[in-house]
Amino acid sequence: MVITKTISLQSKGHCDIIDITPQIEQQLAETDISNGTVTLFVSGSTAGISTIEFESGLLSDFQDMWERNVPKDIPYNHDRRWGDGNGYSHVRASLLGASLVIPFNNKRLALGTWQQIVLVDFDNRPRSRQIMVQIVGE
Amino acid sequence: MVITKTISLQSKGHCDIIDITPQIEQQLAETDISNGTVTLFVSGSTAGISTIEFESGLLSDFQDMWERNVPKDIPYNHDRRWGDGNGYSHVRASLLGASLVIPFNNKRLALGTWQQIVLVDFDNRPRSRQIMVQIVGE
Amino acid sequence: MVITKTISLQSKGHCDIIDITPQIEQQLAETDISNGTVTLFVSGSTAGISTIEFESGLLSDFQDMWERNVPKDIPYNHDRRWGDGNGYSHVRASLLGASLVIPFNNKRLALGTWQQIVLVDFDNRPRSRQIMVQIVGE
Repeated sequence: MVITKTISLQSKGHCDIIDITPQIEQQLAETDISNGTVTLFVSGSTAGISTIEFESGLLSDFQDMWERNVPKDIPYNHDRRWGDGNGYSHVRASLLGASLVIPFNNKRLALGTWQQIVLVDFDNRPRSRQIMVQIVGE
Repeated sequence: MVITKTISLQSKGHCDIIDITPQIEQQLAETDISNGTVTLFVSGSTAGISTIEFESGLLSDFQDMWERNVPKDIPYNHDRRWGDGNGYSHVRASLLGASLVIPFNNKRLALGTWQQIVLVDFDNRPRSRQIMVQIVGE
Repeated sequence: MVITKTISLQSKGHCDIIDITPQIEQQLAETDISNGTVTLFVSGSTAGISTIEFESGLLSDFQDMWERNVPKDIPYNHDRRWGDGNGYSHVRASLLGASLVIPFNNKRLALGTWQQIVLVDFDNRPRSRQIMVQIVGE
């Protein structure tokens, strides 16, 4: 059985990290599927999906890591050609990855207690985001 | 229903980035599956798969990021032992990841307009590559 | 068909890299599923899953990359607030990713000869780890 859902949300951009665990748990609860996988995929090339302990100190640590390793304030060829100023956002998103797959058993996602599912929006402006949520199982 | 396909391609190595979206869209079109997931996996430990806006400025930005963060010209223990000279290629591939899962609905992949699926070949020579394409759904 | 299994293991922490390929191959062999995907997910926010050529030189190169890019010995806000001293472990885990999906065909995983599936435990102490192994296919 395959169920397709969507999460729509508004981000602030600038490495905004949004906890989407509650929406996914609710969408899973609404299905008749007990065992299987939830596949998440964010449309767009300046955002990514991962898991993190959703604690404000750690969120800022994660943002600092991106600034150190894929800095905003170095020249990007993408910006020279297109003037969007978000070359760093694209590079970060391609490294983090647009998709995440989480298995579940007896309706329970395989997440740890301190492990939340997050959208990370690397763009340099607020964005409306669509995440496809595909639930496959039985 | 599970359909297994393969993409075979020739890369130039040296961080060659190849857009494989058209092949995947065609393989999906050839199946009778409307809703489900496409799982991609590249065999071999010196290549990875991700998504990116396939624009030449950005491709060079992505390559520059790899050179800054996992440089070619520092010593690698892998090279000392095996003499392949591609220690950096392995490390980059393990960080990027060998697999990607993209859900689709009514035969349409969840990709954004400026978001292409790419193979990134980090090896230090041209390579023949095999990507398994597994389509699961109904 | 969906089969759910678990891998339990003990890590040493400190970027311990553990080859879990044999367990996954055995779990796959025990099922009646010939074609499909294996989804792996590690519970907890200080470990990740990827593939690598499991060779000791390369394992140390991969560990060195983490130390260069997400160093242990810089200040983390997570550590200031919680005193765990493992802020770097969390950031590394969120970047690497907690899940991996590997397709298989005729019971054979899409892995290359020199490509093993590994758990990477970034925590700063030994840990018991649970990996959910979800096999979906027919």
